Amino acid sequence: MYSGGLKKIVVVVNSNKNLIKISPLIDKFARYYDFLEPIILYTSSPFSKLEAAYLFDELKLPKPHIYLNVKNGAYPECTSQTMIEADKCFTELKPDMIIVSGGSDAALGTAISAARIGIKIAHIEAGLRCPGNVSGTDINRKMVDSISDMFFVTDCNAHTNIKAEGNPEESIFFVGNIMIDAMNKFMPLAKNSRTPESLGLVPNGYALLSLHRKANTTNFENMKGIISAARQISRSMPVVFVCYPRVKEEIKKFGLLENFNERDLILYDLYKYPDFLALEKGAALMMTDSGTMQVESSALGIPCLTIRKNTEWIATVKEGTNIIVGPFPEKITAAAEMIIANKTRTTSVPKYWDGNTAARIADIIAKSFTRIEPGTRKIKTNNPFE
Amino acid sequence: MYSGGLKKIVVVVNSNKNLIKISPLIDKFARYYDFLEPIILYTSSPFSKLEAAYLFDELKLPKPHIYLNVKNGAYPECTSQTMIEADKCFTELKPDMIIVSGGSDAALGTAISAARIGIKIAHIEAGLRCPGNVSGTDINRKMVDSISDMFFVTDCNAHTNIKAEGNPEESIFFVGNIMIDAMNKFMPLAKNSRTPESLGLVPNGYALLSLHRKANTTNFENMKGIISAARQISRSMPVVFVCYPRVKEEIKKFGLLENFNERDLILYDLYKYPDFLALEKGAALMMTDSGTMQVESSALGIPCLTIRKNTEWIATVKEGTNIIVGPFPEKITAAAEMIIANKTRTTSVPKYWDGNTAARIADIIAKSFTRIEPGTRKIKTNNPFE
Repeated sequence: MYSGGLKKIVVVVNSNKNLIKISPLIDKFARYYDFLEPIILYTSSPFSKLEAAYLFDELKLPKPHIYLNVKNGAYPECTSQTMIEADKCFTELKPDMIIVSGGSDAALGTAISAARIGIKIAHIEAGLRCPGNVSGTDINRKMVDSISDMFFVTDCNAHTNIKAEGNPEESIFFVGNIMIDAMNKFMPLAKNSRTPESLGLVPNGYALLSLHRKANTTNFENMKGIISAARQISRSMPVVFVCYPRVKEEIKKFGLLENFNERDLILYDLYKYPDFLALEKGAALMMTDSGTMQVESSALGIPCLTIRKNTEWIATVKEGTNIIVGPFPEKITAAAEMIIANKTRTTSVPKYWDGNTAARIADIIAKSFTRIEPGTRKIKTNNPFE
Repeated sequence: MYSGGLKKIVVVVNSNKNLIKISPLIDKFARYYDFLEPIILYTSSPFSKLEAAYLFDELKLPKPHIYLNVKNGAYPECTSQTMIEADKCFTELKPDMIIVSGGSDAALGTAISAARIGIKIAHIEAGLRCPGNVSGTDINRKMVDSISDMFFVTDCNAHTNIKAEGNPEESIFFVGNIMIDAMNKFMPLAKNSRTPESLGLVPNGYALLSLHRKANTTNFENMKGIISAARQISRSMPVVFVCYPRVKEEIKKFGLLENFNERDLILYDLYKYPDFLALEKGAALMMTDSGTMQVESSALGIPCLTIRKNTEWIATVKEGTNIIVGPFPEKITAAAEMIIANKTRTTSVPKYWDGNTAARIADIIAKSFTRIEPGTRKIKTNNPFE
């Protein structure tokens, strides 16, 4: 059927986390090695020695082929630099398709350049919309979707959104959530982790708290309320607050560090994904403002309280274990107490969140090249000439 | 009803032509001087003395209030610079709304910044989609539409497109085409123009040709074919080829200058809009790759041959006087001969292309501020929490 040369597929990655998430797809592309060439484009600068040892030696992640060297920064500079560098890169490389995921400035910048040059765009996690509170990520996601050619959706809400935006059914692919694939991939490493034990935690005997959104971490009232709720919950079971060093600094600055101790309410800054996975897997309850944790808790069947007023991961609420509580201490403690009292774990998991998402995406992309030639991207219109 | 302070409306303009087009809207905002403050943002650098004399003394256009000083250039640099400068400007100015028109890099750059800061976006000429050949303008238009809050559409095709992309009916406003307002506004000046006379042309006795798209002007085969068609037509009636100096240079470079003379096939580089309008008004036939000319010919009831393979101005084909002929000499001459033989003028004009578009837009925007407070922008989703 297929008779052309190797098709170049640029996979855009903008962070460690993103590389972990996308790595199962790179693995699955291997089965099409004879006609698909995945090229990992990392939008930032090469990794430090420490990061490289962790990512490539320990996690055995695939190494990026290209670095765009875009500096971290505010959206105008970050999106702009990405667009400018991606334009140069794509003009020279002439890829047949780029794959972006999520709604980062890196995703938007590369997508704009690809669209302008006429390169097909596949969007993983297309169609996610966070109602009410419109963040930069939400705006970027919508813009990337507006110029994408293939939409890989995680759940039926995202599917409905993408369809409602006028995209033809044949461009939308309900493939499930690739984060589950990544979680499964690194679970064997997590099983060897000594992190829970070193913190004196027993399986199903503690709550896991993590915050990273600036709407929470840089807001004194929010942080004070959330930490007081955590303290309350820690009377029933230990609470581990896992955070980035940046967040620890904020907590210190707010004078809230004294709430923590080494037994009931533990502040722990953690670097490695398998150790974090180990903590997740043993938790009786998760509390978070992270998208990944909402997804992973649902896949693991562990109750999750989301400390935001809304979520783009509506599927975790409708089909999974997620409850939206906002940054309100009374709501957090009330929901936590109910969960701790019941100690039940649900087994309901959103459809196709089964660890086979990367394989589905790779198969669909491979198939698309056996029937669609590059350079035939089209915008749907009510065109009387066609 | 309204009780707040002056609402700041930033009107984004990126060229002389754009300023002419948008000026009727500025005029109409005057009736709301007590609560709307239109602020003209020109994305480029201040005008030369010559340009300023033409625009402000002769055409009496409103002067821009802010200049972003973005340099002309390729899309990545131009969009990026606009985004970065607009971000600074909007952060300081805190406008309540920005108005962009069309699908320029300036429109995209300012729209991204407005969306990220949380400023409402009104898009004039929303929903236009050029099927098949996806240009930079088409891509920008789609992206701007994906993050706009109010859609001002020129015709029912654009209305259908915007609706099909999932935007709620109450955000879409079928107002007609503001280019007609601009045309009407400057028609009195056009009536005083001595340009047609100076070229020895009589009303309804010549064809007007204009090209500016690089797909034509930098393509030798296309230009050769189009000019040979023009030469053929000039045996029936004089053909005036009006062009920018850049296009004249291309023609010279291609060695096609010798086809022109001062009587039948005239090459004329022209600077001023009223003179061009005068040439349009007297033409028996227009041939063009310009969007504005497709629109104006339909409004004037003059037959138009569009030298492109497709158009975003589908309304001019369905409801107006436009015929798509592509850059093919046989098609151009065949269509021209038919028109010249009939010498009929149609009076069919697309709905609401009546010169009252600017007034409609101003009224709708004014009304929106009496019921919607700024900062309430929403992305439509199937949200179970609402």
